[in-house]
Amino acid sequence: MKNAIVGQSGGPSTVINSSLAGVIAACKQNKDIGKIYGMKHGIEGFLKEEIIDFDFADDETIKKLKASPAMALGSCRYKLPEKGESIKDYEKAKELFKKYNIGYFFYIGGNDSMDTILKLHEFFEDSDIHFVGVPKTIDNDLCITDHTPGFGSAAKYLATTMSELITDTSIYDVKSVTIVEIMGRNSGWLTLAASMPKILGGDKPDFTYLPEVPFNEEKFISDVKQKLQTENSIIIAVSEGIKDESGEYVGSSTKSGATDIFGHKYLSGVGKYMEHLVREKIGCKVRSIELNLMQRAAMHLSSLCDITEAYDVGFKAVEIAKTESGVMAVILRTGNNPYTYKIGFEKIEKIADKEKLVPKEWCNLNDLKVKEEIKEYILPLMKGNPELYYNEHEMPCHISFIKNK
Amino acid sequence: MKNAIVGQSGGPSTVINSSLAGVIAACKQNKDIGKIYGMKHGIEGFLKEEIIDFDFADDETIKKLKASPAMALGSCRYKLPEKGESIKDYEKAKELFKKYNIGYFFYIGGNDSMDTILKLHEFFEDSDIHFVGVPKTIDNDLCITDHTPGFGSAAKYLATTMSELITDTSIYDVKSVTIVEIMGRNSGWLTLAASMPKILGGDKPDFTYLPEVPFNEEKFISDVKQKLQTENSIIIAVSEGIKDESGEYVGSSTKSGATDIFGHKYLSGVGKYMEHLVREKIGCKVRSIELNLMQRAAMHLSSLCDITEAYDVGFKAVEIAKTESGVMAVILRTGNNPYTYKIGFEKIEKIADKEKLVPKEWCNLNDLKVKEEIKEYILPLMKGNPELYYNEHEMPCHISFIKNK
Repeated sequence: MKNAIVGQSGGPSTVINSSLAGVIAACKQNKDIGKIYGMKHGIEGFLKEEIIDFDFADDETIKKLKASPAMALGSCRYKLPEKGESIKDYEKAKELFKKYNIGYFFYIGGNDSMDTILKLHEFFEDSDIHFVGVPKTIDNDLCITDHTPGFGSAAKYLATTMSELITDTSIYDVKSVTIVEIMGRNSGWLTLAASMPKILGGDKPDFTYLPEVPFNEEKFISDVKQKLQTENSIIIAVSEGIKDESGEYVGSSTKSGATDIFGHKYLSGVGKYMEHLVREKIGCKVRSIELNLMQRAAMHLSSLCDITEAYDVGFKAVEIAKTESGVMAVILRTGNNPYTYKIGFEKIEKIADKEKLVPKEWCNLNDLKVKEEIKEYILPLMKGNPELYYNEHEMPCHISFIKNK
Repeated sequence: MKNAIVGQSGGPSTVINSSLAGVIAACKQNKDIGKIYGMKHGIEGFLKEEIIDFDFADDETIKKLKASPAMALGSCRYKLPEKGESIKDYEKAKELFKKYNIGYFFYIGGNDSMDTILKLHEFFEDSDIHFVGVPKTIDNDLCITDHTPGFGSAAKYLATTMSELITDTSIYDVKSVTIVEIMGRNSGWLTLAASMPKILGGDKPDFTYLPEVPFNEEKFISDVKQKLQTENSIIIAVSEGIKDESGEYVGSSTKSGATDIFGHKYLSGVGKYMEHLVREKIGCKVRSIELNLMQRAAMHLSSLCDITEAYDVGFKAVEIAKTESGVMAVILRTGNNPYTYKIGFEKIEKIADKEKLVPKEWCNLNDLKVKEEIKEYILPLMKGNPELYYNEHEMPCHISFIKNK
């Protein structure tokens, strides 16, 4: 009987441990699978034989893990060598697969992590090891899957926080502009979620800027100026990765020429850049806010739907691994009102290193029909409050398997 | 029978509307008070006669107001003229006090707002109008009162968010420094709250920098370097207002010489400044995070204790106003384990334009006794989750009385 191993890779989210809990639980229940191991710090730690045995993981641990943010196994940003490059990593992997009698390999992550699954699957095609990817990324930019685990919770944080920022900034009787910078280098899914107060029928955020639509500085300034004639407090949702007509990131140091305290080119975020622009070209009160790591770390605002799905995807991936290899588990939406889904799978080469962008027609938030469609797509993913764990001081409890390594 | 009027001023918090709800409810219950009016945008709006009649505020409105963040009446940053300067504002106030038959004037705010109460009280000393201040500020820097309404909720947000950031940043097997910038120009109360995971016995945040202790760049760099020898991910809590030995704000543009994209002196926050320092002097992965408006706006993480006290302070202020003028309602702690308090009052001149700083002996978080004392002081203020209002989409509902003005 073969054993299984699972790892996590890339940036954290609040539900990636929920997928890990699903994988562990399913392996433990599966009579055809022996032990379930975990690799610390993803494939990088695996290659250094940083491996733990999940024998200790009882039902209580799995339940707590499901409600714990970030990555209990630790993460890495490691790219396996391409075909034709060094095969050292693969030989080490082969040795460890044999040593630990691995038959099933699960990797929870985003685009780059699926590249790892693809490469391992191709190298070990003639072996009897099954490689299965489990999707996660707050960015929601993986193809085929209806959406990615992690997105719903980040969306809930962003929509709630934007509501609070709208209320906070509306209290003064002076003209002001607040720019809220949201994650997303190439896709604007998270910024759409932050625009939920408007999508649900409100009038704010006043403007939403996505990477999918070229950003024009002159138009931005003139639109803001015009809006300020009728509004006191303007609030803007912007993706960190908006680009100008030539495809260059807005606010990139090359263009801005800004220098930091050491005279280096200053790598300003787009929010800061737009803040400077408004101050210079309009001159009103202006502030930029970067939602930074909070948008992926805010477990206290995670979505029950998201956590449940993340667990399901991990759990079902084990079933899929019995017959398949070189695939990723995907979420397939089977209905709206009420929202329903099932778990399927797709060949990894259709997913790895590809990006799902916001459709062009969804970039216009002034269109009623578009707002209805986005609402129907995003809203169910944000629903419900999971049961979380707190200590006697009402402070959150988080699980880690990598402490004191 | 005289009427009452209430206003809000300064920066928002999640519980200042709770105090407003307390004032309105008490005035409505009080048989010696006629109408209760609200001034929009504080004293500035009052002087423009932007006044609403709270006749419409039924029990349901008051209950919802109690759980709504920011300032439903709007705010202002307006300083009344000093003695010897123009008396135009005071004459206008006199006219309006007469027109609306005002006998009780309540002003909810921080330091600057108490200055307004003091000036009005002094100018109208011979009148029969009673001026009473209701404390609020997330900064917790008002004197006499054990703590300020607003602090407990901000503390809860900061402690929870810091826990989440500690977990998020701990997953990579690389050396990194994360700098978390917290509000507080002169006092470090909020940064102490953000350090709660350490105060409660954890080992992070690794370093805490308060405005009360002069900041030394060389020592900072050498401490971080040393810590990096044994720790992977260092996390730092820093007040926006830390100063160097000469009393100058750390990262102030004069000193840094940084310039923005337009060649202007760059007003970098202290977090960004320290980020640049670490990048330049140590060279490891580094990131700075500004918790910005979220720390005062995050209603979804507000404290039940804080909301309850804020309401009580507003409610009791009405009782106090029957016999007193030129005073502020204060919270007096009457016990720990369990935490208890009562509401008293103090002469406004002992409070206005003064600041309560963190005691010097509380600035050393490596002292076990200090940690116990801070824990006993802050922890009860963060406790409990209030009932909040959400719409059918599970999005927060907030109340405003200034929309469509």
